[in-house]
Amino acid sequence: MTHRIITIGRQFGSGGRTIGKLVAQKLGIPCYDQELIEQISQESGFTEEFVTAQSEDAPYSSWTATLLASDRTYYQTTNQDRIWAIQKKIILDLAQREDCVIVGRCADTILEGKADLLKVFIHADFDKRAQRIVEKYGETEVPTEKRLRDKDKRRALFYQFYTDQKWGALENYHLTLNSGVLGIDKCVEIIASLY
Amino acid sequence: MTHRIITIGRQFGSGGRTIGKLVAQKLGIPCYDQELIEQISQESGFTEEFVTAQSEDAPYSSWTATLLASDRTYYQTTNQDRIWAIQKKIILDLAQREDCVIVGRCADTILEGKADLLKVFIHADFDKRAQRIVEKYGETEVPTEKRLRDKDKRRALFYQFYTDQKWGALENYHLTLNSGVLGIDKCVEIIASLY
Repeated sequence: MTHRIITIGRQFGSGGRTIGKLVAQKLGIPCYDQELIEQISQESGFTEEFVTAQSEDAPYSSWTATLLASDRTYYQTTNQDRIWAIQKKIILDLAQREDCVIVGRCADTILEGKADLLKVFIHADFDKRAQRIVEKYGETEVPTEKRLRDKDKRRALFYQFYTDQKWGALENYHLTLNSGVLGIDKCVEIIASLY
Repeated sequence: MTHRIITIGRQFGSGGRTIGKLVAQKLGIPCYDQELIEQISQESGFTEEFVTAQSEDAPYSSWTATLLASDRTYYQTTNQDRIWAIQKKIILDLAQREDCVIVGRCADTILEGKADLLKVFIHADFDKRAQRIVEKYGETEVPTEKRLRDKDKRRALFYQFYTDQKWGALENYHLTLNSGVLGIDKCVEIIASLY
């Protein structure tokens, strides 16, 4: 039986995670986001912090081994590759088991052709996102602009490396929404109405 | 007074034009598409065919003079530039006058900051679009795939040249919809609900 899965890609600070939770709540189905990190941690034996640091928010410095390994001359499996393989397996298992919302983690491409998908991407203007992350996570030593640009770049790199698709290219999504202009509630309403 | 304008960018064969008409009908406001060509023709003195051939669907061959002219050494205003200037003026006038739907013609960037905009982009998978243009416009000597790719490229070039923005980049839109997956009626419903 094919399950209906809503995948939500999102720019950092766009409220994609909140939208995912609210859609799931409205539809009475589970939402997987941080729960995936916990599962990957359990299956891999790596700590949750390590999993986070080696997956979609991985900093550039963590890519050296993976990029080197992808050159077949030096081929070997890196920790990043192991985490990717486990993440993929967990997401494929989820799609076999139940209808749900999955936030991030390349679920859209992992599940392509394997579930009844609604592929959503949430974005917002820079200023709105900056305002949101300061409200939500507070100020840090790193300037807000740098935090936003870094996180988006990391997600784009991870997505592109493991899926061979461009992150945030509208052709990859059934629906993209500017949450800054439309508002979180309206985004939730539209996505839920398409389920 | 600021008017509310829905701008609809669209890939060729995605049904964007039909969606624009239906949204306007549902909201009881006018939709401008072919009407803009007629107005540009009247104001410029060029025939409608010439206006079409020199604006967003202009073939590459028509760009020689404009691209050469854009090099300041040889600066001069081309017919393409004249048509662009008139198109811009007509669209700005429309936004001063009434709420409406405008299909294509870079209305989204022309009206940025000058109206209460809802910026939409309609796309669809290649096969769906190919099927649609054959149903709608029939077969021609040019293979369907080439017709689609050519038209998209022309629109992208025109948009980029005159607006300095990338056509079909999701950041430029409040909402993008895959009409092939969601269906024309659902797209109309979502857009109208956001007005």
